[in-house]
Amino acid sequence: MSRLLDSTPRADGFRMPAEWERHDRTWMLWPRRPDVWRQGAKPAQRVWVEPATAISRFEPVSVGVDHEQFDNARALLPPDVRVVEISQNDCWMRDSGPSFVTDDAGAVRLVDWRFNAHGYGLPAWDKDDRVPRKIAEIEGVDRYRAPLVLEGGSFHVDGQGTVLTTRECLLNRNRNPELTESRIEEHLKDYLGAETVIWLERGLDPGITSGHVDDVAMFVRPGVVALGLTDDPDDWRHEVLAEDLAILERSRDAAGRSLEIHKVPLPAEVVLTEDEAAGIDVVDGSLPLPAGFAQAATYINCVLCGGGLIMPTFDDPADAAAAAVLGELFPERQIVTVPGREVVPAGGCFHCITQQQPSGGR
Amino acid sequence: MSRLLDSTPRADGFRMPAEWERHDRTWMLWPRRPDVWRQGAKPAQRVWVEPATAISRFEPVSVGVDHEQFDNARALLPPDVRVVEISQNDCWMRDSGPSFVTDDAGAVRLVDWRFNAHGYGLPAWDKDDRVPRKIAEIEGVDRYRAPLVLEGGSFHVDGQGTVLTTRECLLNRNRNPELTESRIEEHLKDYLGAETVIWLERGLDPGITSGHVDDVAMFVRPGVVALGLTDDPDDWRHEVLAEDLAILERSRDAAGRSLEIHKVPLPAEVVLTEDEAAGIDVVDGSLPLPAGFAQAATYINCVLCGGGLIMPTFDDPADAAAAAVLGELFPERQIVTVPGREVVPAGGCFHCITQQQPSGGR
Repeated sequence: MSRLLDSTPRADGFRMPAEWERHDRTWMLWPRRPDVWRQGAKPAQRVWVEPATAISRFEPVSVGVDHEQFDNARALLPPDVRVVEISQNDCWMRDSGPSFVTDDAGAVRLVDWRFNAHGYGLPAWDKDDRVPRKIAEIEGVDRYRAPLVLEGGSFHVDGQGTVLTTRECLLNRNRNPELTESRIEEHLKDYLGAETVIWLERGLDPGITSGHVDDVAMFVRPGVVALGLTDDPDDWRHEVLAEDLAILERSRDAAGRSLEIHKVPLPAEVVLTEDEAAGIDVVDGSLPLPAGFAQAATYINCVLCGGGLIMPTFDDPADAAAAAVLGELFPERQIVTVPGREVVPAGGCFHCITQQQPSGGR
Repeated sequence: MSRLLDSTPRADGFRMPAEWERHDRTWMLWPRRPDVWRQGAKPAQRVWVEPATAISRFEPVSVGVDHEQFDNARALLPPDVRVVEISQNDCWMRDSGPSFVTDDAGAVRLVDWRFNAHGYGLPAWDKDDRVPRKIAEIEGVDRYRAPLVLEGGSFHVDGQGTVLTTRECLLNRNRNPELTESRIEEHLKDYLGAETVIWLERGLDPGITSGHVDDVAMFVRPGVVALGLTDDPDDWRHEVLAEDLAILERSRDAAGRSLEIHKVPLPAEVVLTEDEAAGIDVVDGSLPLPAGFAQAATYINCVLCGGGLIMPTFDDPADAAAAAVLGELFPERQIVTVPGREVVPAGGCFHCITQQQPSGGR
């Protein structure tokens, strides 16, 4: 049974756990839009199998799939990955999916944010907006419908009262033009069970996500943040990240702590080739993805699951250094690297295509 | 995790429990075809809520719904009924849905029969045929794909090795023209975990289901059968049922018992009015449902759930007598009557729109 609740998680004693806390499973969707994914999404589907398989070695994985792709997804994914029918406009489970919250008694509920497909005016997002309610029904989890447009990739939590986000995204007029910064901050606190919001300024992806924080930084544990950085002053990302670093250096979290900040190298941007771009359908209202389209890739966009960390690689010289840094930051986790290039041009990587369902209790 | 198994339930020590054994839940689908259900299925949807609500007072109910009807079904059904997305061509969960089997250790699996929309040549049934595999994934239940076309409404089991069915349906050339009677009987035994098949001759619905047994007779408990009967020799159903009665009287079940047979009165046939027929879409390849179309209604087409029995009524003088007979046959159950007229013209009643998921173990 899934009830629709009209209170807030904070009022009910619920909070969103950090991603390193124990999960019941990870949720994913399944790519198939020919106007987003080249060659009818066939290369993307093959790529999707890899993080799904990698995560499933650490914890259960459920993949929501359109009816039309049900048999194909079932055939491609390993047998221990659960495949359930969930209609979708696109496949960004982090963003269209729910944020789960828990209380100290071990209950699990979910927050169903409004979703508008990242605000850049796609023809439709009605199916994506219904993903959280369908998961709530399947799992028998009560649901809060939050009164703001928000994607799971636009914030991180430390599970102890601190939220990390960017002004570029949350204050963008393509999301909640009627809400002030202070009202948005109140909603974040109410629906994530938090007390402190740290506002970074910009992200690395102005074009698609309007600067999601999950391309920029992540909590490693309470009081500790990992931030993507480049030392090259001619790289446009240098200025963005230096500004965010400065904010982090002067911020305090909900416990009053200064933050310990670790730098993770950045790979080169991913650029769509002529051949890749030629395989993408042209559809009125969809975001054009022409040859030469460049998108920021980042190792920060990784997945924590069970005792694992699934890190994207980009056939880039920085791959090995990033894996080494993340291995030091998460010494108790097995670092599993999976090629992520196919995902990036559409606006994200493995963190963007997953959503953890925490176990109840701390 | 749902594995596709290539053995058979009988070989693995599994059997289909009788409907009176303990359930985890009852499954249903959701009507919406405008070429089957009048007025865009709006009256049928209102009717559907009543058995779903009645059953949910005795055990959990899950309703599979198309994406397009998800919000509407969620709004109409009570909150404690689970609504999950399952694409469908039509809504006969008894027939397109799985048959669950269990073993003595308490394991639950399901049989996924081939489905061809009752063999009368509808334009499509690809979505209905995938209902069992989707339920298997949601529930994490292993699945047998049976090598024959069969609907759950075309047989009953006593849970102790006996199957009751009709030749009119199972030997109809619109189902498995390549299989002999003895081969079909072997498949029934293999996939239902049974030893004895009692072959009745005809059912009451030659036009739509080709004579499903669940309009005719049901097991009350091992060795005891209820049969719909009319005393009117001018009623065309009299001859059909007298023949089936004679077969039952000379049959023995898997335990070698003669059967104790109880007669349940029949209501008058349901006839589509001009007004009703005018509300049904005309679609090439669909079964025409014109004004004057008559369909056999029956109280036998009822639902056992928890401590309840959900019996359809037809605003017929026989309603009360049937409820009294079923009350005597199932003295430990609460008899709940629900109007069933809206369902009948499309070819069935409450038994046809439900499927029990048994609990593991005896």
